[in-house]
Amino acid sequence: MYRIGIITMSDKGSQGQREDISGATIKEMVANLGQVEQYRVIPDDLEVIKATLVELSDLHNLDLILTTGGTGLSPRDNTPEATLAVIDRNVPGLAEAIRLKVLRRLPRQCCPEPLVEPEVRP
Amino acid sequence: MYRIGIITMSDKGSQGQREDISGATIKEMVANLGQVEQYRVIPDDLEVIKATLVELSDLHNLDLILTTGGTGLSPRDNTPEATLAVIDRNVPGLAEAIRLKVLRRLPRQCCPEPLVEPEVRP
Amino acid sequence: MYRIGIITMSDKGSQGQREDISGATIKEMVANLGQVEQYRVIPDDLEVIKATLVELSDLHNLDLILTTGGTGLSPRDNTPEATLAVIDRNVPGLAEAIRLKVLRRLPRQCCPEPLVEPEVRP
Repeated sequence: MYRIGIITMSDKGSQGQREDISGATIKEMVANLGQVEQYRVIPDDLEVIKATLVELSDLHNLDLILTTGGTGLSPRDNTPEATLAVIDRNVPGLAEAIRLKVLRRLPRQCCPEPLVEPEVRP
Repeated sequence: MYRIGIITMSDKGSQGQREDISGATIKEMVANLGQVEQYRVIPDDLEVIKATLVELSDLHNLDLILTTGGTGLSPRDNTPEATLAVIDRNVPGLAEAIRLKVLRRLPRQCCPEPLVEPEVRP
Repeated sequence: MYRIGIITMSDKGSQGQREDISGATIKEMVANLGQVEQYRVIPDDLEVIKATLVELSDLHNLDLILTTGGTGLSPRDNTPEATLAVIDRNVPGLAEAIRLKVLRRLPRQCCPEPLVEPEVRP
């Protein structure tokens, strides 16, 4: 069984202005994998995210840290940058596999069919 | 409605030796999204591509810049390198989603079935 | 026809303690593409991998070098890092297309269905 941490990035959530549905959902999803020992809702702040990731990894020595939020394109979406700044090793295939699952679930939202279908040359 | 720019990278196209079908196709594809305010056909030159991207972004202040061409493997295919050199933020999932669509359309060309199908261990 | 090299990363294989099934399989898979001129089984050592890649590329001047092994998450899995350290040009779409094929073949192993299926907001 893994020792798990969950971090939700949310300016509103960290101020108690929004219920953290994502974090709660992840908690249910990993219930069979191990024990959620740390659960945090923090603001979308680059330095706070970095510090929290390092704390859960190095101080609490968790096996698995799952994050949710802060992955959009606004200036306050800092999760990927913060994560890349503190990890020892990047495994592109993992993020890729996650995005692939989302693409399959949201095909129209992500990748609208072109209005003109270009002909493929053989 | 977005203010859009289209840049076609093509040595031959920039010298008027080849019709720019890709650029014209993109123009049709985005017709419902906004106004194509800038449309350029430029040579496959790293510095020219960088300068044109910066000009359309910072001087013309466009919302969306779409590029076509220069993504192959020849020494004159400089579009990805030029783009990475000038962007503030890279979103790997976007390029990934685009490539995924191409893969689905060209499955045999990109990923030929192995001649020997290795057995998958359970 | 291409001049091809195959490198298998395997601590045990390089000591003759394990048969190199992957390398042999790749050899069969590329039989129609060209001539396998170099075939090596080397330890999972970062510097050895880098040196072997450079040797096959620059000294033997091969057209295509295929590697197998060393892509996991253990400290001795150094193949991606060694490769990135010596290549002139990275083409993320190629590794992506390879991983995509593996995902399609091993959907459950790689991307287990979530225990709770989150509802997608329209």
